[in-house]
Amino acid sequence: MCRWMGWLGQPVLIEELLFKTQHGIVDQSLHSRMGAETTNGDGFGMGWYGVGDVPGLYHSVAPAWGDANLRELASHIESPLFMAHVRAAIGSPVQQTNCHPFRHGRWLFVHNGYIADFHLLRRDLMLAIEPDQFASVTGSTDTEVVFHLALTLGLESDPLAALERTIGLIEAVAAQHHVAAPVQGTFGVSDGTCLWAVRYASEGPARTLFASADVDALKRLHPGNPRLQRMREGDRVIVSEPFADLPGAWQEIPEATAVCVRAGGALEERPFVPQTQPHSAV
Amino acid sequence: MCRWMGWLGQPVLIEELLFKTQHGIVDQSLHSRMGAETTNGDGFGMGWYGVGDVPGLYHSVAPAWGDANLRELASHIESPLFMAHVRAAIGSPVQQTNCHPFRHGRWLFVHNGYIADFHLLRRDLMLAIEPDQFASVTGSTDTEVVFHLALTLGLESDPLAALERTIGLIEAVAAQHHVAAPVQGTFGVSDGTCLWAVRYASEGPARTLFASADVDALKRLHPGNPRLQRMREGDRVIVSEPFADLPGAWQEIPEATAVCVRAGGALEERPFVPQTQPHSAV
Amino acid sequence: MCRWMGWLGQPVLIEELLFKTQHGIVDQSLHSRMGAETTNGDGFGMGWYGVGDVPGLYHSVAPAWGDANLRELASHIESPLFMAHVRAAIGSPVQQTNCHPFRHGRWLFVHNGYIADFHLLRRDLMLAIEPDQFASVTGSTDTEVVFHLALTLGLESDPLAALERTIGLIEAVAAQHHVAAPVQGTFGVSDGTCLWAVRYASEGPARTLFASADVDALKRLHPGNPRLQRMREGDRVIVSEPFADLPGAWQEIPEATAVCVRAGGALEERPFVPQTQPHSAV
Amino acid sequence: MCRWMGWLGQPVLIEELLFKTQHGIVDQSLHSRMGAETTNGDGFGMGWYGVGDVPGLYHSVAPAWGDANLRELASHIESPLFMAHVRAAIGSPVQQTNCHPFRHGRWLFVHNGYIADFHLLRRDLMLAIEPDQFASVTGSTDTEVVFHLALTLGLESDPLAALERTIGLIEAVAAQHHVAAPVQGTFGVSDGTCLWAVRYASEGPARTLFASADVDALKRLHPGNPRLQRMREGDRVIVSEPFADLPGAWQEIPEATAVCVRAGGALEERPFVPQTQPHSAV
Repeated sequence: MCRWMGWLGQPVLIEELLFKTQHGIVDQSLHSRMGAETTNGDGFGMGWYGVGDVPGLYHSVAPAWGDANLRELASHIESPLFMAHVRAAIGSPVQQTNCHPFRHGRWLFVHNGYIADFHLLRRDLMLAIEPDQFASVTGSTDTEVVFHLALTLGLESDPLAALERTIGLIEAVAAQHHVAAPVQGTFGVSDGTCLWAVRYASEGPARTLFASADVDALKRLHPGNPRLQRMREGDRVIVSEPFADLPGAWQEIPEATAVCVRAGGALEERPFVPQTQPHSAV
Repeated sequence: MCRWMGWLGQPVLIEELLFKTQHGIVDQSLHSRMGAETTNGDGFGMGWYGVGDVPGLYHSVAPAWGDANLRELASHIESPLFMAHVRAAIGSPVQQTNCHPFRHGRWLFVHNGYIADFHLLRRDLMLAIEPDQFASVTGSTDTEVVFHLALTLGLESDPLAALERTIGLIEAVAAQHHVAAPVQGTFGVSDGTCLWAVRYASEGPARTLFASADVDALKRLHPGNPRLQRMREGDRVIVSEPFADLPGAWQEIPEATAVCVRAGGALEERPFVPQTQPHSAV
Repeated sequence: MCRWMGWLGQPVLIEELLFKTQHGIVDQSLHSRMGAETTNGDGFGMGWYGVGDVPGLYHSVAPAWGDANLRELASHIESPLFMAHVRAAIGSPVQQTNCHPFRHGRWLFVHNGYIADFHLLRRDLMLAIEPDQFASVTGSTDTEVVFHLALTLGLESDPLAALERTIGLIEAVAAQHHVAAPVQGTFGVSDGTCLWAVRYASEGPARTLFASADVDALKRLHPGNPRLQRMREGDRVIVSEPFADLPGAWQEIPEATAVCVRAGGALEERPFVPQTQPHSAV
Repeated sequence: MCRWMGWLGQPVLIEELLFKTQHGIVDQSLHSRMGAETTNGDGFGMGWYGVGDVPGLYHSVAPAWGDANLRELASHIESPLFMAHVRAAIGSPVQQTNCHPFRHGRWLFVHNGYIADFHLLRRDLMLAIEPDQFASVTGSTDTEVVFHLALTLGLESDPLAALERTIGLIEAVAAQHHVAAPVQGTFGVSDGTCLWAVRYASEGPARTLFASADVDALKRLHPGNPRLQRMREGDRVIVSEPFADLPGAWQEIPEATAVCVRAGGALEERPFVPQTQPHSAV
């Protein structure tokens, strides 16, 4: 059920993290170890900040491991902040409009996991989206609806608070429909300056989430990579599954926790507590 | 803005009408003469009745003129009743879930034209869909919403009456949003037994719609085609644009008119009058 | 490195073997157990005999497990003889012209395995193709070249003898280029009447190949499937990997062995011995 | 039969020339005025020089006019030298390996036109490719073979002389096969420093080719475009069809003529004379 990664730091060629690292996100598309599915072959997406007012997007229905265009773009685009996502569809169609990241203005959004029984909740959740934004939902994933709910509930002012309200709203709507344990997964958000990530499940263990421990760790990961040996303090990677097994290189984000990576690489961690206000109050 | 055709009659190899006729629907994908656009290259779809409880569907994002699979299927599938559609997207994404025909159980639905300012109306129209069916809308076209509205308003009992209620509802919702001339186009419907078609525009001339005049006409169309020379009384073709220019071969369906082709080929024609009941009464 | 299956028997809906059997070929696209790769997600193909002078083909670059069109076609096409193939590309592009089966007139051809160092041998092998057929090679796989060599060397007269000459030629060309162990895999061939299959490796163990033991075995495989309970003596399935683990249901084809399944289901087995005539004699 | 363009000058956002100019190459994919076909919907390709040792490539089978990824890339990639191509396939499959530009190291190659009766000539032409490069031909277009012939005949040392030898070779091989008027079209080549273009037909009028007259002309083309108003002396565009109809903005390249645009924008023009040496001498 999907794998993703985010990079914030000095500008790097995207392939450094997608293709040139051991067990990177493209390798995870074929051989995920910690995901609910080993194969994440139902489309790829990446969003990167660079030239242009809004981040660039590349969405492809081809499996990441065999996508010739992805290989080209990754080796020709540099970015100081990007997110990449490999998808394992669970029911919804394999189409570009279902590929992550989703974008709104400067904002990007990715998700690994699911909203349980989404078909039962979709109508009520879409009704809670700001009416002017309703027609902006062009795909059929749960994630796109979660993103537009979060935008409705203040993502652009306070992303983590908005996500707490969003997850709370989803849990409330699910309760009305007698859907148990509705929210599962990790979420990644960026505005081009910071990178936020959330690990949360309504019940039971949440999908895994990790942050690179520090630059020294990454240098140990890639001792032969001249670019990475030039890394600066503050470069940071967030991943749903570690790229490699170097002891000490990755710190696991606890469950029900949110992190914020700021420019400069500072990593702040705080509890993530859904705001379960009544649906009618939204 | 799309071209479509429907066949009802004896079983024919689909290629006879898609590829082997002069200016057939595949040729219209590249060189439409009467459409709003000459090129209808944003995907192809066909639905056919044959083996299986429900009609088969083939939806492709490749332009019809160059789709090798379409050529194969058309030359290997026979059907007594099928519909084919070439799409000119006007804003919505080119993806399989946006290809016509749309299907619900035994029912197929195609559309040529548009709902004006659909993004302004989409939310209210989707709210008018039977709530249990809301999550069945997986694409982002206006047509899929029109189809689910028609299902909500009785398509399976009385397709033409349901379409009159559906168009009436759309016009009412559009009026609330100050959208003028909201409905434009032709619609095709089948349940595997009959073929219904509607030509209607809220204002101004509607998209064209034709029925093959009679079997003799079609035989004149294809004097060298042994299969068509074996046609039986009652074979009938409905098209948004004639395949060829043989005088007398095609009868134009008047504006604001619906037709019903029954097994045996009888063609009934009646006025099409949207039922403009208040939205709240739906 | 690919999985395939062939059916010869009474007409069946293709989905019975692709989707409705336990661990069928579509499941093998995601979770192969015996293949060199567990994932065969680099395209799908099937060829079926039915309506039309030549077999129908469907080639798709989408992974089989998520291909909505495949699901439709499989549930709407019946055939007494068909082959299906899921691909794990090893270097060559994911494109329809690289999907199996390959077709020439009434003949279909599939392959699981590889020609080692094919890029070193490609030129010499293509030069050995009948010059008039050279331009018919439109993809870039080793398999398509093997097929055209076999056609050049008499496939249409005596398929197994032609394949013995073809493999012998490939081994001779490989020896000239100092390529060791050039041929690996299983091959499937049909002319619409019979189904031939070969298991062979120049060195070491060859890819697996199995035949369904007899109709009683298949009935035990699917005790709840009314269609299969109606199977007749003589229905036969050839697979590169068994669909299910029912003891006694599958007989392994030995290495360096060819089989021929004739209408009526008779299964003949014979040694497969490449004819290593000098290249210049071809 | 295809349209293409090349840019050499200061770095520009690719969308400026693909989407923001009047009747740019993307518009020409739908509404070409001077091409043999009005629709060039059988795939898109672009190659750009920028980050990385070799130029980046993007090849897509989707029609350019509806390709969401193309729109994204064009608005997020800047380059001082790039080529874009829209394809109208004439027989060969629509697949990424048939999209232009073709690349070899630092070199890019595009073509508009055809090699007549290519299926008759393909074998002899491929045999004339440097044997080590034979396996690098992975698609099925005539253009890819022309490119590899030109590489064999010295493209990397002297591109125009190599193309004269290549066209001469093709004409000689064609004569042996009694194929008249074998070469038609325009060719574009770059090594990342210069941009070469050729207009040539063995017989009759060649496809059109134009160069932007000078920077002042381009500024007149886009009076409201701030980026283009910042253009510097020496920016140059080569096109198979002018973007717009401003008098004086475009100079037509004569038939049987080659041009070379160097860094700084100098445009040199010389006759293009195929070297019709005997085939055996190659």
